[in-house]
Amino acid sequence: MAKGLRIAFQGERGAYSEEAALALFGEEIELVPQRTFDAVFAAVQEGHCDHGVVPIENSLAGSIHRNYDLLLQYDLYIVGEHNLRISHCLIAHPGVGLGEIRRVYSHPQALAQCEHSLRELEGVQVVATIDTAGSVKMIKEQGLRDAAAIASERAARLYGMEILRRDFEDERTNYTRFIALGRKPVTPEGEAKTSLAFAGRNEPGLLFRCLSAFALRNIDLTKIESRPLKGVPWEYIFYLDFAGSLSEERCRRAVEQLKEMANFVRVFGSYPRAPAAWVEAES
Amino acid sequence: MAKGLRIAFQGERGAYSEEAALALFGEEIELVPQRTFDAVFAAVQEGHCDHGVVPIENSLAGSIHRNYDLLLQYDLYIVGEHNLRISHCLIAHPGVGLGEIRRVYSHPQALAQCEHSLRELEGVQVVATIDTAGSVKMIKEQGLRDAAAIASERAARLYGMEILRRDFEDERTNYTRFIALGRKPVTPEGEAKTSLAFAGRNEPGLLFRCLSAFALRNIDLTKIESRPLKGVPWEYIFYLDFAGSLSEERCRRAVEQLKEMANFVRVFGSYPRAPAAWVEAES
Repeated sequence: MAKGLRIAFQGERGAYSEEAALALFGEEIELVPQRTFDAVFAAVQEGHCDHGVVPIENSLAGSIHRNYDLLLQYDLYIVGEHNLRISHCLIAHPGVGLGEIRRVYSHPQALAQCEHSLRELEGVQVVATIDTAGSVKMIKEQGLRDAAAIASERAARLYGMEILRRDFEDERTNYTRFIALGRKPVTPEGEAKTSLAFAGRNEPGLLFRCLSAFALRNIDLTKIESRPLKGVPWEYIFYLDFAGSLSEERCRRAVEQLKEMANFVRVFGSYPRAPAAWVEAES
Repeated sequence: MAKGLRIAFQGERGAYSEEAALALFGEEIELVPQRTFDAVFAAVQEGHCDHGVVPIENSLAGSIHRNYDLLLQYDLYIVGEHNLRISHCLIAHPGVGLGEIRRVYSHPQALAQCEHSLRELEGVQVVATIDTAGSVKMIKEQGLRDAAAIASERAARLYGMEILRRDFEDERTNYTRFIALGRKPVTPEGEAKTSLAFAGRNEPGLLFRCLSAFALRNIDLTKIESRPLKGVPWEYIFYLDFAGSLSEERCRRAVEQLKEMANFVRVFGSYPRAPAAWVEAES
């Protein structure tokens, strides 16, 4: 894609989000690390970066509700998606053996995904940090030769460290779906997907009537999830993704019908549909 | 409820699951701690325990897919539910001040839920452990006077420790829904709920047709979630909860219709509906 685009992502250089950003926008981009997801959204909205890349769901842990909340809070659009197979490595200083490791550092989610593998390392203390790649950077900079970090192969390479174990995660079917954020909506060519959220008072048939907008037009759903609305008893917010673009008449009409039936509808955008990572992972 | 029931839960004494078990089965039960969720299911299936209690969804983190997988894997029924407001405390030895804390121990999920609060404690190392209450026990037994744990008020009381900070979580609307497991289905009296999972080949209108089974009978849905089926591209599994019991004709008929339309249906059971914790939390 375009040269010199500034792309915001959460974490240190070598984070999984960085890999997703490179897959989405190409190798020529300028990567701009941010401390939090909130900062990624703010950097794009305020114009410091052209786009942002954040995880939206993981095959083991489910939807990342924090980023759905931020999508609702900011005025940004989803302009792309990428499914990344998450393959965790156990990373240490070159020459250090597995038997010398006394502590393992990583983000709580990565630690949770490697729970069984970690239990097999005896007498090792597990330490939670704010991100995966940052843990590799930290043990490198502080010269911690009795420590290891759980992060991506890319992080090991970037910081000149060695991989003690590959595929350290407990389940191989671990993939994360990332979305690209922009200030303006895009009009995808070819296979497309549209993401939106809607809310309504829970009453029998509400969801059925809302889904009729799509079913009666033969529009394929790729995700649906209900979530209780914070602080509003018995009201739900639904996350919905469908195959198709708002540039298609039938999709626009479906969303119009949805607006008649739900109290609240927010379209996050239409964008090119990415291949599923689990198709590659399983084949 | 009945005296002397043996109830399996994951974690150490003082875990949030233990609180849910007491709320579900009364104070007279015998609590049987297990190391993993898998062990909870096995203890009930093999008859070592009468019932088990596991978390199934959290308002911030979403569904606990691991326990849905175990529901599908074992031949057990859901016989009850309880919504617990999760209120994390920062816990240390009596007499220890906040300024003396150098390390904080807890389960990765609890650490993630207290991320902002933890960042405000300067120069503190965050250490991930296998559970919340077990961290309190550990700092107690090892006499770690420069350490604190994040766990429930109950855990602090149980181990004779002191609460340095209450409501340590970043968001107050943090509640977890627990389910009670049994070897036999129950017939709930009064307001009831039924949980099931179904799967089908993704094609336009599949979900709409499936939901018609409920909408056409005025049956209220309380949860719906799609999840890609592991290793089967383009097939989805859906988690669905509805208001009502299989002892009602219209609910039985709805499930019969669903079976005609989906490739796979598994009913986890009907059980008494619990009040929503967030209603209490917000009022």
